[in-house]
Amino acid sequence: MQVTPAVKAILDNYESDNPGTKANLARILMQGKLGGRGKLVILPVDQGFEHGPARSFAPNPAAYDPQYHFKLALAAGLSAYAAPLGMLEAGASTFAGAIPTILKLNSSNSLATTKDQAVTGSVRDALRLGCSAIGFTIYPGSEYAFDQMEELRELAEEAKDVGLAVVVWSYPRGPALDKAGETAVDICAYAAHMAALLGAHIIKVKPPTATVSLEAAKKTYQTQKIDISTLTARVRHVVQACFAGRRIVVFSGGEARDDLDAIFAEIRELRDGGANGSIIGRNTFQRPEAEALKMLETIIGIYQGK
Amino acid sequence: MQVTPAVKAILDNYESDNPGTKANLARILMQGKLGGRGKLVILPVDQGFEHGPARSFAPNPAAYDPQYHFKLALAAGLSAYAAPLGMLEAGASTFAGAIPTILKLNSSNSLATTKDQAVTGSVRDALRLGCSAIGFTIYPGSEYAFDQMEELRELAEEAKDVGLAVVVWSYPRGPALDKAGETAVDICAYAAHMAALLGAHIIKVKPPTATVSLEAAKKTYQTQKIDISTLTARVRHVVQACFAGRRIVVFSGGEARDDLDAIFAEIRELRDGGANGSIIGRNTFQRPEAEALKMLETIIGIYQGK
Amino acid sequence: MQVTPAVKAILDNYESDNPGTKANLARILMQGKLGGRGKLVILPVDQGFEHGPARSFAPNPAAYDPQYHFKLALAAGLSAYAAPLGMLEAGASTFAGAIPTILKLNSSNSLATTKDQAVTGSVRDALRLGCSAIGFTIYPGSEYAFDQMEELRELAEEAKDVGLAVVVWSYPRGPALDKAGETAVDICAYAAHMAALLGAHIIKVKPPTATVSLEAAKKTYQTQKIDISTLTARVRHVVQACFAGRRIVVFSGGEARDDLDAIFAEIRELRDGGANGSIIGRNTFQRPEAEALKMLETIIGIYQGK
Amino acid sequence: MQVTPAVKAILDNYESDNPGTKANLARILMQGKLGGRGKLVILPVDQGFEHGPARSFAPNPAAYDPQYHFKLALAAGLSAYAAPLGMLEAGASTFAGAIPTILKLNSSNSLATTKDQAVTGSVRDALRLGCSAIGFTIYPGSEYAFDQMEELRELAEEAKDVGLAVVVWSYPRGPALDKAGETAVDICAYAAHMAALLGAHIIKVKPPTATVSLEAAKKTYQTQKIDISTLTARVRHVVQACFAGRRIVVFSGGEARDDLDAIFAEIRELRDGGANGSIIGRNTFQRPEAEALKMLETIIGIYQGK
Amino acid sequence: MQVTPAVKAILDNYESDNPGTKANLARILMQGKLGGRGKLVILPVDQGFEHGPARSFAPNPAAYDPQYHFKLALAAGLSAYAAPLGMLEAGASTFAGAIPTILKLNSSNSLATTKDQAVTGSVRDALRLGCSAIGFTIYPGSEYAFDQMEELRELAEEAKDVGLAVVVWSYPRGPALDKAGETAVDICAYAAHMAALLGAHIIKVKPPTATVSLEAAKKTYQTQKIDISTLTARVRHVVQACFAGRRIVVFSGGEARDDLDAIFAEIRELRDGGANGSIIGRNTFQRPEAEALKMLETIIGIYQGK
Repeated sequence: MQVTPAVKAILDNYESDNPGTKANLARILMQGKLGGRGKLVILPVDQGFEHGPARSFAPNPAAYDPQYHFKLALAAGLSAYAAPLGMLEAGASTFAGAIPTILKLNSSNSLATTKDQAVTGSVRDALRLGCSAIGFTIYPGSEYAFDQMEELRELAEEAKDVGLAVVVWSYPRGPALDKAGETAVDICAYAAHMAALLGAHIIKVKPPTATVSLEAAKKTYQTQKIDISTLTARVRHVVQACFAGRRIVVFSGGEARDDLDAIFAEIRELRDGGANGSIIGRNTFQRPEAEALKMLETIIGIYQGK
Repeated sequence: MQVTPAVKAILDNYESDNPGTKANLARILMQGKLGGRGKLVILPVDQGFEHGPARSFAPNPAAYDPQYHFKLALAAGLSAYAAPLGMLEAGASTFAGAIPTILKLNSSNSLATTKDQAVTGSVRDALRLGCSAIGFTIYPGSEYAFDQMEELRELAEEAKDVGLAVVVWSYPRGPALDKAGETAVDICAYAAHMAALLGAHIIKVKPPTATVSLEAAKKTYQTQKIDISTLTARVRHVVQACFAGRRIVVFSGGEARDDLDAIFAEIRELRDGGANGSIIGRNTFQRPEAEALKMLETIIGIYQGK
Repeated sequence: MQVTPAVKAILDNYESDNPGTKANLARILMQGKLGGRGKLVILPVDQGFEHGPARSFAPNPAAYDPQYHFKLALAAGLSAYAAPLGMLEAGASTFAGAIPTILKLNSSNSLATTKDQAVTGSVRDALRLGCSAIGFTIYPGSEYAFDQMEELRELAEEAKDVGLAVVVWSYPRGPALDKAGETAVDICAYAAHMAALLGAHIIKVKPPTATVSLEAAKKTYQTQKIDISTLTARVRHVVQACFAGRRIVVFSGGEARDDLDAIFAEIRELRDGGANGSIIGRNTFQRPEAEALKMLETIIGIYQGK
Repeated sequence: MQVTPAVKAILDNYESDNPGTKANLARILMQGKLGGRGKLVILPVDQGFEHGPARSFAPNPAAYDPQYHFKLALAAGLSAYAAPLGMLEAGASTFAGAIPTILKLNSSNSLATTKDQAVTGSVRDALRLGCSAIGFTIYPGSEYAFDQMEELRELAEEAKDVGLAVVVWSYPRGPALDKAGETAVDICAYAAHMAALLGAHIIKVKPPTATVSLEAAKKTYQTQKIDISTLTARVRHVVQACFAGRRIVVFSGGEARDDLDAIFAEIRELRDGGANGSIIGRNTFQRPEAEALKMLETIIGIYQGK
Repeated sequence: MQVTPAVKAILDNYESDNPGTKANLARILMQGKLGGRGKLVILPVDQGFEHGPARSFAPNPAAYDPQYHFKLALAAGLSAYAAPLGMLEAGASTFAGAIPTILKLNSSNSLATTKDQAVTGSVRDALRLGCSAIGFTIYPGSEYAFDQMEELRELAEEAKDVGLAVVVWSYPRGPALDKAGETAVDICAYAAHMAALLGAHIIKVKPPTATVSLEAAKKTYQTQKIDISTLTARVRHVVQACFAGRRIVVFSGGEARDDLDAIFAEIRELRDGGANGSIIGRNTFQRPEAEALKMLETIIGIYQGK
């Protein structure tokens, strides 16, 4: 399938990557209802690891089955499906070639005693499961941040070498940050920038809030009159921090919420700020399938400019 | 030997595995008196490592000899025999091809000062000893859980690559859990789910108790009205947490007990909850051989639907 | 291009290196307006990692784009451009062959909780991106200094083996040093000497101040009447500590400053002390391009003897 | 040389080992005055490492020379000679093929600050020096026990792969044990059992004392009426813990003692309990050569049934 | 060049080494004014790393140039020159084949916060620089001693494999030792013995003092009437601890001292005790070249029996 000019323009930004990696980025960007527009919506299902199976799947028991998520992502016309090893192993053959997959290579859990993650998959796993990309989480600000960056470096080099794309979840936390700081706009932009510097192709961050957290950064935000008043403006700032828009940035959807209008309004602001898309998990698979599909249709519509 | 439809259905759930691994799972599922039914009973003998030789074998001194356990498992018509390196080395040649074996790759001991395990065998050992699977213990909730998961990841990848199956003992413990929490139903389901996410083919947990331990999970169990009133219901919940039944789950037998009726009643509940079987060590080899064989006959009968 | 006698004389000091490494050193020394004189000015852009994107690039938003820095270095006629992985990936193909690049292989950040750095690139990355050298920072005096030296040793051996040059940022800090000690002339000379002993081809240090910090060294500086009264004299001492001038030494420009005359005066002293050049980041890319180019023209003029 | 039926019976217990390892075990079991009987006496000389040269060799200065020990073991008709790297390097060529050697791969010393050992030799060293076996010490109960077991696992796998035998010194110590506990019969049997589980071919422990140390084990020793009243009975228990006699067990001789009759009486009890032999260092090489030879003649006589 | 009988006798003690290593030992033993006598004087220049450049070289500024030391060692007719990576890189080609070199593979520095060393060179570096040996420091008694021994083990195995010799600096220090203990005769002999056990070809220790430090060793020194009254006697004891003279032992010269007669008297005692030679750094290169040459001539004369 010939890529569209919009996708071609994005691929050109990854000028150091080999054709294999570009092809896998193209697979994601040409998939589903947003295919060809340079926009994407990803379904991530690693909550079973993070919060346990009941908290993740009991609200919609069909979701206990790993194959449910392949079907959901496919039916909704999403761009890709991301999950840890076991989840993909249980459906990768049945859905081979149907939708690009992202193997999440590290995971935390609610029983853990440290703010770290365990590496739970490999680049070779991603290859044998037919994935288009690997996914990896870093916690900038954590005591483990340097170790995580070094793990990411090794895995990303290996992934690029075999033609896979690299998706980085950059979630600030740790001793230097209070709860508000974790989503502060300066920290969010910094976290996104570090993911870009580490060689990520696709960067995932949380929607930034109107706070500047790092003491040393406050003066800059005032002096340079950086607009952080609206989510749209803050997203624009984060996109700028990703090599002036040369890297794909997607924003997470957060906890499951009832107020659909609020969700849609937020996504409109993400779009207007220049976000490449959203990555939405609990808000989709914890609803009954029909509701989830309807919600995703609206979200995709927003990224289609509706 | 042609596998039965019941076994074929189980093997189909392991759709990402190579034929070598499927053949080894089939060997276990087609072995012994439960062969072909999709049910299994495994004899594990790692108690010498965990508790020392006298506490393990003095009640039935014949069991000091590693070859005793091969014979017992064979005579009882069990599905597989699991043990650490030395135990298998001492009989693997004599009993080559007679019964599938599982090489336990890590072990703890009663003199240890930390809640960890030492890696005491390798995938290459499993191959040279003719094993069908490797076994590995993780302690979710322990300070060593991330390290153990990363060790498991490497060994499991290597094992799958050479056509072996992977059996994971998932035993929650550590600072986040009190004694009751270690067997609480939410923790047990979470531990089983993590083993599945880590790529286990066969998951071993302890029978769950009617407690919810993780504060953050209590609301879900109440709101979603998850039935934990009977062992049968709780086992059903754990099976669901293992990819909606797409992974084999077996339950341990616990300490040696005199009350056989209680043991049998428990196993009936495991079966009714959808467990694939049991893994029973001390309750068998610490009894005189004749008694053990009789007990195992009854247990196998239960899984045969008697 | 035939190298000049001045450059040939410098290359001869690297008598143990293979022709590949000599060629890459020659590329840097023959590049730009100082090409052939044995002097060099390098543009380093790792401040996005160290201080975050807004503090680094908001003063001159064009600098958010990685390709801006390639253009700036090229337009100014500089000798080389140094940056972390992502920054080079985003322009290495467009500017292939246009200007020698140095891949910075480790990086710290303002959210970090320890005085260490993460390794964020590899020698293979440097090769695939067409770099002439790797860059690496050590913190002599830090708790991590031995680890960093061992990382550098491995990377430097690998780099020399494949014909790359090695640039070492030697920045003393840690428990043994107070703030004044970090730039004290004895510490600066010691840090430069250790970089030379570790096999660096190009050594980067901060301009030394007129303090002797190490108690055990004070007697030597007094007895031997080592002149530390002027920056010129101190630079001469540092150059001597780099194998009596057998290794290239460049000095950093420090924070962005308004007083251009002070900057130029400092650089004249560096030159008069025998420094091979400067490495100037924030003072250039945080100004509007035209101003930066003008400032760099003056600096290059100083090294040209004007 | 055709092995005797007694040796053949022992070799048959190592049914999983390759012919190379069996040949090396046979070399040890067919060597010297006990050759062919299934009994063995080994000379170990690692005391220079453990206690320093003067404390080890000053009582008999001829023993400072590494070649002295080769000669002593040969003259006394012993089964094998065990020592660290340097000791074997200094005589392995002169005495090539004369007597089986065991390269001790880890060592502690009296200046050490932790209850650990350093790995000081390799399997490749053992091969190039013509050794028949590697030797390795573990400290069950120590904070380093898991690390040591993992080191042993790797070295033992490598050794078996190249046809060497594995001798394990299993010496309990550490926080869980008081001085009496280190030689308590339950701990000794447990330590021997763990060595067997770790894949040792020859297990070395200290003669057990009539104490049960582990609280959790006391009930078993009482209930099961395990006889620990005499050294003979305790040795029998330890032999049983070594896979019901399927593994070779030798006992150490302890500190140099003057009372020869006590030494001989102890060895008679070891023999009567089923020990395969003794491993005696200081009691031999710290005496004048003639005395040592005479003492060893008596000891060998005891194992010959005299 | 045919080796002399004296050198042949020494080489024969290294009976397990390959011809490559023997050839390199021969190169050192046949070099310079002591060539062929079985005696040697080595010039070590790692003080720039240990104490910094000014403290090391300011007293004789010509010594800032790495090539100065090659020339000095050559002019004085020394046996070998030992230095860290950068020092050798800066002269190895100019002086290729002129004098045997020893690449020091680890180094400490005065800014370090721990009693450890960083590994700063490799066996491959030694090969590419044409060295005859690697050098490595261990600190018996330090918290890092086991780690250092394990590093040495790996490097020494690799070095021997490619035909290089191994020189070990054995410098006791750490929690178990007070200042006097670091040079106590029992500790010195123990440190030398451990270096021999670790497989060193040439052992470097400090001249021992008339103290016995280890409590457990005092009885032996008294009972066995070990003569420690003179330096000659103590050196004889250390030589005995090096496999009864089967290993080459050299003694360091210590800090720069003015009293030449004292230095010469000490060296006469070293010689009379059976030392193979001296390793003298600061006392030579911190003097003007002519003075240093004269002093070295006298020292060489002493080892020539004058």
